[in-house]
Amino acid sequence: MSKRKSIKLGALIHGVGGNAAAWRHPEVPADASVSFPFYKEQALTAEAGKFDLVFIADGLYINEKSIPHFLNRFEPLTILSALASATSKIGLVGTLSSSYSEPFTVARQFASLDHISGGRAGWNIVTSPLEGSAKNYGKDEHPSHGERYQIAEEHLDVVRGLWDSWEDDAFVRDKETGVFFDPEKMHRLNHQGRYFRVEGPLNIARSRQGQPVVFQAGSSESGINLAAQSADAVFSGHESMEEAKSFYKEVKTRAAAAGRSKDDIVILPGIGPIIGRTQEEADRKFDELAGLVSIELALQVLGRFFDHHDFSRYPLDDPFPELGDIGSNSFRSSTDRIKRTAREQSLTLRQVALKAAAPKGQFVGTPDTIADLIQQWHEEEAADGFIVSSPFPSSLRDFVELVVPILQERGLYRTEYEAETLREHLGLQIPVNRNTSASVKLHS
Amino acid sequence: MSKRKSIKLGALIHGVGGNAAAWRHPEVPADASVSFPFYKEQALTAEAGKFDLVFIADGLYINEKSIPHFLNRFEPLTILSALASATSKIGLVGTLSSSYSEPFTVARQFASLDHISGGRAGWNIVTSPLEGSAKNYGKDEHPSHGERYQIAEEHLDVVRGLWDSWEDDAFVRDKETGVFFDPEKMHRLNHQGRYFRVEGPLNIARSRQGQPVVFQAGSSESGINLAAQSADAVFSGHESMEEAKSFYKEVKTRAAAAGRSKDDIVILPGIGPIIGRTQEEADRKFDELAGLVSIELALQVLGRFFDHHDFSRYPLDDPFPELGDIGSNSFRSSTDRIKRTAREQSLTLRQVALKAAAPKGQFVGTPDTIADLIQQWHEEEAADGFIVSSPFPSSLRDFVELVVPILQERGLYRTEYEAETLREHLGLQIPVNRNTSASVKLHS
Repeated sequence: MSKRKSIKLGALIHGVGGNAAAWRHPEVPADASVSFPFYKEQALTAEAGKFDLVFIADGLYINEKSIPHFLNRFEPLTILSALASATSKIGLVGTLSSSYSEPFTVARQFASLDHISGGRAGWNIVTSPLEGSAKNYGKDEHPSHGERYQIAEEHLDVVRGLWDSWEDDAFVRDKETGVFFDPEKMHRLNHQGRYFRVEGPLNIARSRQGQPVVFQAGSSESGINLAAQSADAVFSGHESMEEAKSFYKEVKTRAAAAGRSKDDIVILPGIGPIIGRTQEEADRKFDELAGLVSIELALQVLGRFFDHHDFSRYPLDDPFPELGDIGSNSFRSSTDRIKRTAREQSLTLRQVALKAAAPKGQFVGTPDTIADLIQQWHEEEAADGFIVSSPFPSSLRDFVELVVPILQERGLYRTEYEAETLREHLGLQIPVNRNTSASVKLHS
Repeated sequence: MSKRKSIKLGALIHGVGGNAAAWRHPEVPADASVSFPFYKEQALTAEAGKFDLVFIADGLYINEKSIPHFLNRFEPLTILSALASATSKIGLVGTLSSSYSEPFTVARQFASLDHISGGRAGWNIVTSPLEGSAKNYGKDEHPSHGERYQIAEEHLDVVRGLWDSWEDDAFVRDKETGVFFDPEKMHRLNHQGRYFRVEGPLNIARSRQGQPVVFQAGSSESGINLAAQSADAVFSGHESMEEAKSFYKEVKTRAAAAGRSKDDIVILPGIGPIIGRTQEEADRKFDELAGLVSIELALQVLGRFFDHHDFSRYPLDDPFPELGDIGSNSFRSSTDRIKRTAREQSLTLRQVALKAAAPKGQFVGTPDTIADLIQQWHEEEAADGFIVSSPFPSSLRDFVELVVPILQERGLYRTEYEAETLREHLGLQIPVNRNTSASVKLHS
């Protein structure tokens, strides 16, 4: 096995818990999803663990059937900006939908976060899976899955173009002569596309990392293609290491086919480690968490993948119902998987729902067991690193205090930050400004 | 004269200087508009002075003729969120355009800032004066002045409706029973208007101040009406105390006509105090700043009010040109005033431009002189307080160290923060949730 780059780690911070029932646990502050002290403490814990980044997820539609911690939570850009001034090294990545936003605003807000944080910003571009989002944004209908990805591609293209509006030496700021900038180094985008028309320039320069890091988190066919062609990093989800390996290989192969190096894209599956001093303690914690999941909540969690479909209308112990197209315009890769598994394993609705809502059982064990699994996934090219979702707030602390030192001893993980920017943490190149390279070519 | 409420103070923080030429001064860090340490230091200075708020202005279009510090600057919501975690008491107010934003996103981001800061957020709703903004947002044309205000009214109505989505006791969070919220206390807005259709509910609750404070900063007829009917606070600009008194009376009268109390709306003219230990020192500072303004820059500053009209094409020493409708869809109240003054005083283009770009000379003097003026404007009902724009970074420190203590000695200004939220600082009521009051009425 060839020597691999060191493991990358992100921390998913999400209010009242990484599991839909976690808010009920005695340890969890039930209002964590709108508690700045909670977010700050989690971010500082991750930074103490030399994590590459914190990650804030998002959604644009709720209703009575939503998972509790989605009902009332911080908006990603504002909480990340607040965390920017409370931290100093850790990357700050947040979800923002390309289906319901204007590229000029998205480009500005992430560029501004990038400057505030000294080059630590990242944008997780998502297409918004929930149909109801359209109703909060004055649209007659939610765009189809395929169209959402076409919008996303163009949106990302515009945002990246805007980020390059100013060459790095455009701002002269000569107090003596009164020349503030060189107009030759300011570039209009003049984008006229199918979905967006944006003139530019953006009213903010590039940061020290050049451009914010772009994440992608969809695992459908369209999602994988967008990731392979354009993303700097992928936040994926897998049921097994074999599945993760196959996804990893697929994305890296497609990235190579698109003319990129395999090091240009970092793949980070999500994991939810439950750590005990002994395997028994870990199993007990797992059972405790699983026991908080009622069947009603499980149906809600399952329903959300199918665009808040109401599963309470079906008999619980009959075979998983035939759903036709329901959910196919929502979280497509998840709904496809759920349907397939139910069919192949002849599961009942109750079994499917509990499986969807239960804590994930892959990374449950002692610190050594968890470290072994992480090392194995990494060595076998199932992952370049992981996004750690904490079932309990203390899970992140346990991970930092108990698992990270083992990874460090094994030489798999940094013991100190070696750089200042997110791009450098992740081993990604600073992109050359498209306008600078063009001008260099023209003038040479 | 009846006893007045104590004076309110805000600090306008704007990068490389409160005047278009200030970046050339030796004391000003030329990259201040994208320096987080600069913004943080200014905010902490204002907080040390027990200011009610900091204020971040904004714009959505730049070109070669833009004023230097508009070319490359922070986006308001991100910089305010970063300042939220760097400060603890001071209000955080930022500009965001109702012409180029979605109410659902605006409501979320300000509500999120409001939670992060513990109830210190404020939104300055503007309609975007620059025609070019349309080109950055895929629109064929910039809406007319009148239509922009119709959009603004409806936008604000939607945002405030979304802010009331959750009654204050909606989140039960009963760990024992697993009940997270009371669905009866979650309210959809179901807004179907001329410009916006928004279902809701918003995915964030109200903060401890109920809703963010709404500022308004336009002084046209439509702007004054929007302020009188809907705003909590007004950021105005005046050439003389007499003009300010007339504006103040007009807004308060119209607010009363709209069924509001005159204490429901706080009027804060902008001032740019230049402070010297002696009048001579203050005058010298004024001249130094005025001397940095070249005629080219002056024409740019003037041009911006007229939607970046190119004034360099006219003879400098001829009478101010006849402009017809140019600028009337941009900063209308300013362009009307400039045209009127030029006509009445028979000014040349050079005179008009230098007047537009020069530092304002109303508040130039010793700390006692400045305090006298502030007291007079306040007592004579020209202002409830002021937004202090600092020509130099040190101007704010001088104001806090030299002028504030005089106002405190005179009993006109707080010596300690008496509250936690912006609404309380400004003496504004916490608005009753529209859904709570309806439901109380229905059930009683």
